[in-house]
Amino acid sequence: MTDNTWSELDERAIKMAKVLSADAVQKAGHGHPGSPVSLAPIAYTLYQRFIKHDPNDPDWAGRDRFILSGGHASLTQYVQLYFSGYGVTLDDLKYFRGGKDTRTPGHPEVGLTPGIEMTTGPLGQGLASAVGFAYGQRFERGLLDPDTEAGKSPFDHKVWVICGEGDVEEGVSSEASSLAGNQELGNLFVIFDANHIQIEGETKIAFAEDVLKRYEAYGWYTDEFSFIQPDGSYKEDIEGLAKVIEKAEQVTDKPHFIKVDTLIAWPTPGKTNDPSSHGSALGEEAVAGLKKLLGFDPVKTFEVDEEALAHAREVAQRGAKAHAEWDAAFDQWKAANPDKAALYERIKSGKLPEGFDQAIDELEASFEVGAKVATRKASGNVINAIAPVMPELWGGSADLGGSNNTNIKGAQSFAPAKYATTQWPDCSPYGRQLHFGVREFASGCITNGILLGSDTRPFSGTFFQFADYERAAVRLAALMEIPNLFIWTHDSVALGEDGPTHQPVEHLDSFRAIPQFEVVRPADQWETAEAYRAFFEKDNTLPAALVLTRQGVPTLAETADKAKDGVKKGGYILVDTEGTPDVIIMATGSEVQWAVEAAKTLAGEGIKARVVSMVCMEWFEEQDDEYKESVLPASVKARVSVEAGIATPWYKYLGTYGKPVSIEQFGLQGDGAQNMIDLGITAEHVVEAAKDSIEAAR
Amino acid sequence: MTDNTWSELDERAIKMAKVLSADAVQKAGHGHPGSPVSLAPIAYTLYQRFIKHDPNDPDWAGRDRFILSGGHASLTQYVQLYFSGYGVTLDDLKYFRGGKDTRTPGHPEVGLTPGIEMTTGPLGQGLASAVGFAYGQRFERGLLDPDTEAGKSPFDHKVWVICGEGDVEEGVSSEASSLAGNQELGNLFVIFDANHIQIEGETKIAFAEDVLKRYEAYGWYTDEFSFIQPDGSYKEDIEGLAKVIEKAEQVTDKPHFIKVDTLIAWPTPGKTNDPSSHGSALGEEAVAGLKKLLGFDPVKTFEVDEEALAHAREVAQRGAKAHAEWDAAFDQWKAANPDKAALYERIKSGKLPEGFDQAIDELEASFEVGAKVATRKASGNVINAIAPVMPELWGGSADLGGSNNTNIKGAQSFAPAKYATTQWPDCSPYGRQLHFGVREFASGCITNGILLGSDTRPFSGTFFQFADYERAAVRLAALMEIPNLFIWTHDSVALGEDGPTHQPVEHLDSFRAIPQFEVVRPADQWETAEAYRAFFEKDNTLPAALVLTRQGVPTLAETADKAKDGVKKGGYILVDTEGTPDVIIMATGSEVQWAVEAAKTLAGEGIKARVVSMVCMEWFEEQDDEYKESVLPASVKARVSVEAGIATPWYKYLGTYGKPVSIEQFGLQGDGAQNMIDLGITAEHVVEAAKDSIEAAR
Repeated sequence: MTDNTWSELDERAIKMAKVLSADAVQKAGHGHPGSPVSLAPIAYTLYQRFIKHDPNDPDWAGRDRFILSGGHASLTQYVQLYFSGYGVTLDDLKYFRGGKDTRTPGHPEVGLTPGIEMTTGPLGQGLASAVGFAYGQRFERGLLDPDTEAGKSPFDHKVWVICGEGDVEEGVSSEASSLAGNQELGNLFVIFDANHIQIEGETKIAFAEDVLKRYEAYGWYTDEFSFIQPDGSYKEDIEGLAKVIEKAEQVTDKPHFIKVDTLIAWPTPGKTNDPSSHGSALGEEAVAGLKKLLGFDPVKTFEVDEEALAHAREVAQRGAKAHAEWDAAFDQWKAANPDKAALYERIKSGKLPEGFDQAIDELEASFEVGAKVATRKASGNVINAIAPVMPELWGGSADLGGSNNTNIKGAQSFAPAKYATTQWPDCSPYGRQLHFGVREFASGCITNGILLGSDTRPFSGTFFQFADYERAAVRLAALMEIPNLFIWTHDSVALGEDGPTHQPVEHLDSFRAIPQFEVVRPADQWETAEAYRAFFEKDNTLPAALVLTRQGVPTLAETADKAKDGVKKGGYILVDTEGTPDVIIMATGSEVQWAVEAAKTLAGEGIKARVVSMVCMEWFEEQDDEYKESVLPASVKARVSVEAGIATPWYKYLGTYGKPVSIEQFGLQGDGAQNMIDLGITAEHVVEAAKDSIEAAR
Repeated sequence: MTDNTWSELDERAIKMAKVLSADAVQKAGHGHPGSPVSLAPIAYTLYQRFIKHDPNDPDWAGRDRFILSGGHASLTQYVQLYFSGYGVTLDDLKYFRGGKDTRTPGHPEVGLTPGIEMTTGPLGQGLASAVGFAYGQRFERGLLDPDTEAGKSPFDHKVWVICGEGDVEEGVSSEASSLAGNQELGNLFVIFDANHIQIEGETKIAFAEDVLKRYEAYGWYTDEFSFIQPDGSYKEDIEGLAKVIEKAEQVTDKPHFIKVDTLIAWPTPGKTNDPSSHGSALGEEAVAGLKKLLGFDPVKTFEVDEEALAHAREVAQRGAKAHAEWDAAFDQWKAANPDKAALYERIKSGKLPEGFDQAIDELEASFEVGAKVATRKASGNVINAIAPVMPELWGGSADLGGSNNTNIKGAQSFAPAKYATTQWPDCSPYGRQLHFGVREFASGCITNGILLGSDTRPFSGTFFQFADYERAAVRLAALMEIPNLFIWTHDSVALGEDGPTHQPVEHLDSFRAIPQFEVVRPADQWETAEAYRAFFEKDNTLPAALVLTRQGVPTLAETADKAKDGVKKGGYILVDTEGTPDVIIMATGSEVQWAVEAAKTLAGEGIKARVVSMVCMEWFEEQDDEYKESVLPASVKARVSVEAGIATPWYKYLGTYGKPVSIEQFGLQGDGAQNMIDLGITAEHVVEAAKDSIEAAR
């Protein structure tokens, strides 16, 4: 997009961007005007000169990606989308932070507004996920076009970010930026808006660090530019800024961090460099003053400088030209690479490979009933069964690959060759084995970014306990409806001697609580394999967690027959009785074995107990009422749940007479199997609870 | 503790530390031997020469604090506690990672083992909370002895940390370390064990940053030392290390970060610098080899070099001497400062000030029934009512002070004077207003550290939504049973146009899920004031969250009478009926008003509805069965819950026939009040649900 020279029209467009931002917040009565006003020249420079984009095709695969990490400054982006001609209209700007049908909400939402690549607002995550966008670009390029010269492939694009102080204060920026430096992500460009103001005022009271030095320490290319001149005057020198960015573009083996010193809300009279401009409307007087200063009629609102707008809209022509050139390059690539083109078509459409089902079927054929296999081990076996047919699958762990069983046998590691180690001698920029280090939150954000920015399918692992560290990323995946796959192992007190700091107790409840998130806890090898099948085959794009045991669990005879139909329905009858059961025992994961055992004991005493494996409550809830009633008939009021965690999520199924077998306290030191017994998770307790419930329901 | 010169006995003690660590893991069969073996000389150096401590009085107020941030290396500390004579015995080492009654668990637990200051294991948090320990020391010193020359006060002590790569990879290290630099915490000393090994192998594949440069960027004093010699040999030069630390001690206006390059498990044959030594027993052969190398009998286990042990135990005499000197200084201070001494006695014993109740009573006298006041505002009023009588109370927000109402009027900010800003002109190292920047996780860890390391009472605020970022610290506070106070505002979709990224829906459930954590959601000014009273007066030390509205809520007539007795019981009858109610409506926070309104509507139709304000489920559950039955009689099966979040936590009270009025999806853009209506949180829906439930229970 470099066939552009700045003119007076650009200056007018930037002024208009400021005025429209101020007007939009003023009309809404609330919002964040300061940053959109002072960021206008930076955003305009990026959209007009640097970002490769085609406003007429927001989904163009060859586009650069832009992420506004400080989502509260959403008008920064909405105005540029309006200027570029994405279909965001002046009316949309007038309806900023409007009713629930607005297309210009307080924080940008992916899928809602054309040109928005990611939902932002929770600070730090835009920047951290941008690292994932860059990961995704490189991996997909490696999959489809590894040998073409750098910068010449239709799968080359850049990732642009504007972030603020709040983003780099958040710890996840440190995690992800360290990885970005490690990975030498030369296509990542971060503009850091250093306006030295946050909600509580000047940043230095809580943020006196040398940010550029910190980013140098991570291995980034850094540079800085200031709109504040040595004589104290302020000049939005976009020509100078553009040169700084162009210089950065010459460095292709490091991510780029460019600090730009600005004054928030400049040049709004009385509000420039004032913290109140961060999160409140500027006020009519200030807005009028701003308009006067910038040559707009202070009485009019949403005044459009049509000539400047038309000039800005010319970016669409440049975008169309770039798109056409890309189309030609793409067609050439396609013709030369029919196999890869077929792969691209498939992964872009989200289809599974032909051999997917067969790979799982073949694995299942190896299962032996009675064999004790940890579900984390079973999960690793599934990953390694499908990986050969599913080249778009990649992932790794937050430094627990061996424990999480997230290692892909024979895979190259995703890392520059110079970082190869004794343990991981085969590193490649296109490798599929990820290594996040001890950075759970970054692992969540990066995999979110990979999903948003590529057609590939990432997974990431950690201990279930430390999923708490990445919870905010899990929630954002759910909100964005992207099919991120979390592999969380060591799922209960049965992990043993690492003790209460490592033993999940409340986590099944707390993650089930997140809307649009699917928590899957398989009982054995069969259910684990079917959980993968169901996750990849399901007709939504919601994220899911596989919650897996550390300890071995028996491969059940019952699941061998029933998991294939049952798992995808979330809850299913694993053991049934003749006629109406006296009691229903519901269980998940490692506790299903105790439910089955208890049912046998009860049968011996003439009590008819049905066992329901509730492998995923969310999938079960999606079933129709008839199916749900068939599994959990309302007439059977005697019910027991058994799960090695708090009972909270079970009460809706237990009703008044049901009895949970659960753990209502933190875990214990000591042997894992003994912990389970000491905390009452046993078949004997299930039997007792069943009798109690039958008695209560009488 | 500097009247010490190294001798051959010290070398023998260090060798013994290595051998005992290897033996302990070998006996357990699992654990993390590598770091305890290679950290032995560093830990020994600190415990023998630098840490001011008295093993005969682990609670001595004048002691330095030591935190092992990488808690998996717990033997590092247990062995030094054994050496120093803390009452940790050889038998304790033999029972490392033993049964649930072990005093030497996998990860150190505060309160369990003498000499352990904090529970560690979740990486990054030890380091981050150590920053809080240093905050707490400085604030308490300012409270009690502000004018004494630096280093001469009985309230001066140092905070020592050993951390590893995993700790500095975690983002929270970045958040807290940036604040530590900002605060110029000259009494904080971090030894960074750079062994370049983590679970997945050599760190460089995921961790190639320049850590010292990063810490310089935060404003820390940095230095480095290596046990790996230029010729490739390895020498545990504790004399040299001690000099590096002594040099660091000369710098008193910056926190200290000293990198020490080590080889994990050195000199264990076949296991030195081997990742397998991180988290698995070394194996009999390797342990025998280690013993041989170090002059121990390879056949014996837990062999004690009695002479070396006796030598190490001499630290207790030095500690006793330091303690005696401190006692004299303390007595002198006490005599000279009777008022401050009384304050110290009070806060040390955890007693409230005399004027505490009166301050709340006087505030309550100003409440006007019907006045619409947001509970966040009410909370700010309580803080400001009790702050004058409670000088040990301090706190602040993760950059949302004005929004969270966590500002203390007229208070100085806790910051060096040079970081004073236009908004916060009055900064002091002893100030009570905290500013965390946009760093929720650090705010949780730092306040945890303040509680562990001082006698003061911190609070921290953020939006309820972003409590997710600090969840792991909240859990650790609960596990450690420390009374941290979290102030979480903007608690529902009623916050409006900031949209779904900011609107909590699942958070009440997910935080209630944490054991030993108390979630308090008051309905109005009365309940807010009484929530504070109950929190500070309750007879446990569990942490709690106040979950507060952004929007105004009416000050109820009903709470005026009943909150004072009711709130501390967690749930209480706010509106009752003659005789047995037809239905019980349970509600919290901003929804209590709708419950009351619905009860009135139902009364008009001849339906008797009891309203229960369930301000804190955890407090309610602590009541005796008789009280709980009196509030929620089992015979009344028609029940309704109304809360602007998911219904999950309510089912245990709803039973089979109850009906929740809840929000089972992410929030909405648009006006907050309208969001509530659009999502069904209205008095009308409560009325409908009540009728439905009565019908169902018939």
